[in-house]
Amino acid sequence: MEDTPASPAPLTVIGLGPGDASLLTPEARAALEACACVAGYGLYLDLIPPEWLAGKRRISSGMRQERERCAAAVDAALAGEPTALVSSGDAGIYAMAGLALEILEERGLLEIVPFSVVPGVPALCAAAALLGAPLTHDFACVSLSDLLTPLDRIRARLSAALEADFVCVIYNPRSHGRPDHLGMAFDMARKHRAPSCPVGMVRKAYRPGQEVILTTLAEADPRWADMLSLVIIGNSESRLAGPYMLTPRGYARKPGKTA
Amino acid sequence: MEDTPASPAPLTVIGLGPGDASLLTPEARAALEACACVAGYGLYLDLIPPEWLAGKRRISSGMRQERERCAAAVDAALAGEPTALVSSGDAGIYAMAGLALEILEERGLLEIVPFSVVPGVPALCAAAALLGAPLTHDFACVSLSDLLTPLDRIRARLSAALEADFVCVIYNPRSHGRPDHLGMAFDMARKHRAPSCPVGMVRKAYRPGQEVILTTLAEADPRWADMLSLVIIGNSESRLAGPYMLTPRGYARKPGKTA
Repeated sequence: MEDTPASPAPLTVIGLGPGDASLLTPEARAALEACACVAGYGLYLDLIPPEWLAGKRRISSGMRQERERCAAAVDAALAGEPTALVSSGDAGIYAMAGLALEILEERGLLEIVPFSVVPGVPALCAAAALLGAPLTHDFACVSLSDLLTPLDRIRARLSAALEADFVCVIYNPRSHGRPDHLGMAFDMARKHRAPSCPVGMVRKAYRPGQEVILTTLAEADPRWADMLSLVIIGNSESRLAGPYMLTPRGYARKPGKTA
Repeated sequence: MEDTPASPAPLTVIGLGPGDASLLTPEARAALEACACVAGYGLYLDLIPPEWLAGKRRISSGMRQERERCAAAVDAALAGEPTALVSSGDAGIYAMAGLALEILEERGLLEIVPFSVVPGVPALCAAAALLGAPLTHDFACVSLSDLLTPLDRIRARLSAALEADFVCVIYNPRSHGRPDHLGMAFDMARKHRAPSCPVGMVRKAYRPGQEVILTTLAEADPRWADMLSLVIIGNSESRLAGPYMLTPRGYARKPGKTA
């Protein structure tokens, strides 16, 4: 355990929601206002109305420096500065809450630094809302990033989710460093779903430049996606309903049957 | 297609978040304020500050009457009354967005009634925030309700998710009508996870009477849960970190190793 000052300050991990301030909760706003120091990836800090950050110290760095940024946030809280660590979407889904706890644990600070998480509207709910209702039945979230997870494990997990007929939510679908992962995922999906299975692709949900594509597995083009995109592949009962993607609630009641 | 009046009004499906108004987004509040009619399960309407509903018509009914409630909301919008259909949590995850689209589709109204979804903070993110960071890696959501899905399909899906090492988020874990489903889920998990695997159980997240239990698969008692609870079972690398549940971000970097 490290030497600590008399009064470490709270470290609060905050989910900002998808982007627009109208989807940032009052609790997240209050937690931001209560802090003296805000740490986050530059793109995420840019989602916050600038006047909310006036007078606060910022710890910012690029995407790959997340461990250093998180450690700096822990240092700030330990030194007595109330600190917010921000993520877009929810703070817990593939986000900073886990890394913050890992660092607190490694440094023996779990019982020293007051820690809490403010949940947010996650990217998967933002994308789903723009597509219609793709998540009305069981779903699985899979990240295609192999930075920290071996690719064979990602493939095995996605394959199991497809075979068990989960709606599949794909995070980190495609980047310059791994341009082929989403195409691989679509190829895997084609073994378990009909060509007519709906595929929704949402980029920059609730941010300037938002794009929504609703297509089918037969037509889906993986080149359209990037790191700012989220992709949803339906289950065996998902369908296009007019301009919307719809996964019915269950298997027992068939469409067209009235209650 | 039904005969329609000249100007159907918007039907907006709104996620209220887990309960406390501090986690209800400004967008959800604005959408509520813009409507003349609010439809929802009574328990969900009670989550809304009463003054926000002043002067609005309410369509409320019990949990099992959701189809009738949703149809009444469609009728209201079709008749020209701006209508909100509310769910707790997110509006799309096991919630009303799908049923609303099903009814609009059945009645040929998909292109007639303006439809949109306002996403919310889902129950899974609320529970995760209270537990620490259980969702930092791939996860699957499974509902144990067999009202609309055959039990053998639920079992097959949960088994696949456990075997593929997803963190498993259990919705509708237990009710009077199916008191044994969560015990069945724990028994299945014991085939794929160590006895020390963390299990988080959260009841009434961010509502009066909130309860959080963090335990292990060896100790987890299914009798504690009910329909107001959500249960999270870790993956093979999840662990208890002090008073928190932690799923590390990946497999490549082991705890204790610094960047």
